[in-house]
Amino acid sequence: MLEDIPQLKNKSIAELNELCDKLRNKIIDTVMENGGHLSSNLGMVELTVALHYVFDFPEDKIIYDVGHQCYTHKLLSGRAKEFGTLRKLCGISGFPKREESEYDCYNTGHAGTSISAALGIAKARDIKGENFNVIAVIGDGSFNNGLVYEAFNSVSEINSPILIIINDNHMSISPTVGSMHEYLEKLSAENEQRAKKKRHETIFERFGLDYDGVYDGNDLEGMINKLTEVKERIKTRSVILHVLTKKGKGYLYCEQNPQETHGISAGRHKSTDYGAVLGETLEELAATDKRVVAVTAAMTPSLGLSSFFEKYPSRSIDVGICESHAAIVCAGLATEGLRPYYAVYSTFLQRSFDQIVEDICSQNLPVTICIDRAGISGSDGETHQGEFDLSFLSLIPNLTIAVPKDTEEFKKMLLLSADYGKPLAIRYPKEGFRTFGSCELVFGKWEMLAGGEDVAIIACGERMISIALSVAKIVGGQGIGCAVVNARFVKPLDTEMLESLTQRHIVTMEDNALIGGLGSLVDSYFSESDKIIKNFAYPDEFIPHGSVNELMQKYGISINNVCDYILKNANR
Amino acid sequence: MLEDIPQLKNKSIAELNELCDKLRNKIIDTVMENGGHLSSNLGMVELTVALHYVFDFPEDKIIYDVGHQCYTHKLLSGRAKEFGTLRKLCGISGFPKREESEYDCYNTGHAGTSISAALGIAKARDIKGENFNVIAVIGDGSFNNGLVYEAFNSVSEINSPILIIINDNHMSISPTVGSMHEYLEKLSAENEQRAKKKRHETIFERFGLDYDGVYDGNDLEGMINKLTEVKERIKTRSVILHVLTKKGKGYLYCEQNPQETHGISAGRHKSTDYGAVLGETLEELAATDKRVVAVTAAMTPSLGLSSFFEKYPSRSIDVGICESHAAIVCAGLATEGLRPYYAVYSTFLQRSFDQIVEDICSQNLPVTICIDRAGISGSDGETHQGEFDLSFLSLIPNLTIAVPKDTEEFKKMLLLSADYGKPLAIRYPKEGFRTFGSCELVFGKWEMLAGGEDVAIIACGERMISIALSVAKIVGGQGIGCAVVNARFVKPLDTEMLESLTQRHIVTMEDNALIGGLGSLVDSYFSESDKIIKNFAYPDEFIPHGSVNELMQKYGISINNVCDYILKNANR
Repeated sequence: MLEDIPQLKNKSIAELNELCDKLRNKIIDTVMENGGHLSSNLGMVELTVALHYVFDFPEDKIIYDVGHQCYTHKLLSGRAKEFGTLRKLCGISGFPKREESEYDCYNTGHAGTSISAALGIAKARDIKGENFNVIAVIGDGSFNNGLVYEAFNSVSEINSPILIIINDNHMSISPTVGSMHEYLEKLSAENEQRAKKKRHETIFERFGLDYDGVYDGNDLEGMINKLTEVKERIKTRSVILHVLTKKGKGYLYCEQNPQETHGISAGRHKSTDYGAVLGETLEELAATDKRVVAVTAAMTPSLGLSSFFEKYPSRSIDVGICESHAAIVCAGLATEGLRPYYAVYSTFLQRSFDQIVEDICSQNLPVTICIDRAGISGSDGETHQGEFDLSFLSLIPNLTIAVPKDTEEFKKMLLLSADYGKPLAIRYPKEGFRTFGSCELVFGKWEMLAGGEDVAIIACGERMISIALSVAKIVGGQGIGCAVVNARFVKPLDTEMLESLTQRHIVTMEDNALIGGLGSLVDSYFSESDKIIKNFAYPDEFIPHGSVNELMQKYGISINNVCDYILKNANR
Repeated sequence: MLEDIPQLKNKSIAELNELCDKLRNKIIDTVMENGGHLSSNLGMVELTVALHYVFDFPEDKIIYDVGHQCYTHKLLSGRAKEFGTLRKLCGISGFPKREESEYDCYNTGHAGTSISAALGIAKARDIKGENFNVIAVIGDGSFNNGLVYEAFNSVSEINSPILIIINDNHMSISPTVGSMHEYLEKLSAENEQRAKKKRHETIFERFGLDYDGVYDGNDLEGMINKLTEVKERIKTRSVILHVLTKKGKGYLYCEQNPQETHGISAGRHKSTDYGAVLGETLEELAATDKRVVAVTAAMTPSLGLSSFFEKYPSRSIDVGICESHAAIVCAGLATEGLRPYYAVYSTFLQRSFDQIVEDICSQNLPVTICIDRAGISGSDGETHQGEFDLSFLSLIPNLTIAVPKDTEEFKKMLLLSADYGKPLAIRYPKEGFRTFGSCELVFGKWEMLAGGEDVAIIACGERMISIALSVAKIVGGQGIGCAVVNARFVKPLDTEMLESLTQRHIVTMEDNALIGGLGSLVDSYFSESDKIIKNFAYPDEFIPHGSVNELMQKYGISINNVCDYILKNANR
């Protein structure tokens, strides 16, 4: 059994190493059961124990970049007992959460934020005249992100010492790309030879940081000694400590397959990944259309594009975790007549917002943005839900937004996209479970999937269409004629179809926040009429972790709820 | 007279220098008349002439970062005759515009995009097997932005040679901050001594770029020779050419006052800057509240904060053009109980979108975002208009959005903000012209400025309130009772007030895009009722350059238009 808050400082190195084994087993057992991030957490066990041994949390503050490495920290700070609820609704979050514990001082989830946050916290400490240590732990994958560089640029300006630990496992989610990574590699090699180290004025020292490395982050005793020494130095000056850890350490399968075991899903069901359809369709397109180029920002395999990248290396670009840059590269490619496909998770697309507005849409360039993990994505929680994309995209002029009802329609959209010639966003969830039969696809035109004269449910995306069709059947049994409209283009609205529905009671359904989404666009379309419209969508709050179905239920997006509404209101 | 497209290659150096004088005079005359960016353009005359002499535009492609240095380029590429229409409605844009000329291959306006765009264009060239040169010209101010670093990281990965010219004038808009700038300084000094240059492995070379510098960008002949040589080298490898130019070169007043002459406004009228109120009020607050900290991303003087920065240096942070980082620093400060005020232009806030969602609002931290140049900002055009902020902010949970009706209400909002304790955004235009009398301010509560039982205009911001009050008076004269409601909080909506208006015909007005703005929130609020609502807001298109009044007229936001609607529809 793990103690709730183990008193590390009283333990011997042997006892601490024993504790590491226990922690590692606890992490493996829990993640295999609940899903979660395995290999990055396994690599961080000794380093985290050393940090807790040397520093005094929660007085000292630690920020885990992205947060994929915080499980040991959670197990050492009073959350061992509840750890079995990891990533479950109302359970322990897979990411640092201020709301969960005073040991978590800053919430993370998106890459590259830890150094900026640490500088802010350290500056606050100095303004208040307090005296604690601030530590950012950042993986080498995050290191490509521009935020890191923006933060480095202000280390001297802000002038409040922090400790930055680079947790270098030569891996972000897919193998790290980019020159900074190669630079880190070079430093490691040089340091292993212990040659020329002192003469080497590193990039980091240019920015006013003392660079110190490379050390073995899985050597507990070595880490304790090094951190004890560094703790003194950061009283006066920011230090960057470069540590190598082994992703998946202590679990052979992970060590050999770090990419497959980065994120483990909790259960497997029969489904088709939209990503697989993306990859296969882009390959099909690329075979005959020389203009097709695929662009990713570090998630190539999870987006279904590994095979495309192998088959068309000269037309494949993975820029690393640099979503802003990726969007502009696409715009540049498009100005020269190519047809870039930018594949990205919904939540990380938020990082490209300004570039979608200014570079892609203001220039009206034919870039297709393929948005995976749209809508509720599940157990990763707030920072990974994709419930905002319809909202932050619908406000952008010149952009067409498509939401396929199933993987077959997704494929059709992709096949037509190369000749569409304008900015296009297609959003979809990770998995597809059903298909609804084929129908002609015309850009900007909706599709009537079921007839009925009393009510019309305007819905988009597979999850919503599934519910809508079930609802139509149920209320049909009670004598209410319920049409189901596949609003496969959220922008532009199919106004011809909308006009044809004005005699019906209208219900909208979407896997997105209400504000700015399909429902609010329909509301505004009818604002000058006396039409009554009921919107089913997510309320104005951040959606926590839980399973997709649990969360949809929690927010009232369910067959029962929609049926109830229609049965009560259809004849109003 | 300037030739339309001067045949530079046939001219002698003496003739070219003469041309430079003419170009400089044309720029000074036009900007003094029309407003625009003066000093940065004056510094670029010789370098641009040299580029046009050595390269072959439009076959070769050039991207001007931000675009504040493109006037000479415009004058050399067929736009000399129309140059007198610079920044005027339907005239020549102050920024590169693809729609305007084939010599402009990529539109810019926001900092740091040029290298990413150049890499995309060069990659397209190589995919297509074509053979032209791609050049990015970027100022040292943009150099702090994380995009530059993201682009550097993929120079090797993308592997398509480009030329990057650093136009180093030791100035962005305010004096450049940050370590990269100091690094550039250091390189210059070293190179002026011509010492140790070869042994110096620069940051740039780490990224797979040949670094070459420092050269005098105002020395036309020297530049022609250097560019001719570099043109050969970029056939096989990306080169970064470091050039020093003198901001305001050739116009003594500018040379001595580069900051004041960065942007020149076209005419001056009697007004109060909202920025002045921001600065003065934050100073007032800071005097008694030790928690107040001001954070900017490179626009400190234009935001009205110069005096605050002088008075409270330890509580002032200018991070340079790094809007993403700035937002996270604020979040970090707030986690420690401080009260950061992040002042920023509306359009540049787009760069902080992901960080406002994840770092500030998801953590529900008391950061106040002060959004200047909100709504139509005028002659800078598409990339500088602030018509999207209500839309991209309204979708974010936990965020309160305030829109003061005048500078007095702005001051009140600021005075109350420090104890508000939650994320808050306050948006306002550059200038205030009127005040409307005082009234108690309660967070989340609207204010009735004029009574009337037939129609209610729900409006936000000084420009809209002004129009609404005039409209109410005019239609009142025709016997229509028109209430005017100051919707000073766009989020949350004042639902109590909204409920009290249900007997009236409702009209909304805002200085923002319709989608996602005040109007669409009101539409959605009433979606389940048969209420008829008319929204006045900007349509779903990018707003070009022109004066604020011309553009508001163009989009139907005028006293006449709103009166017409009400007179026709009020009794419907």
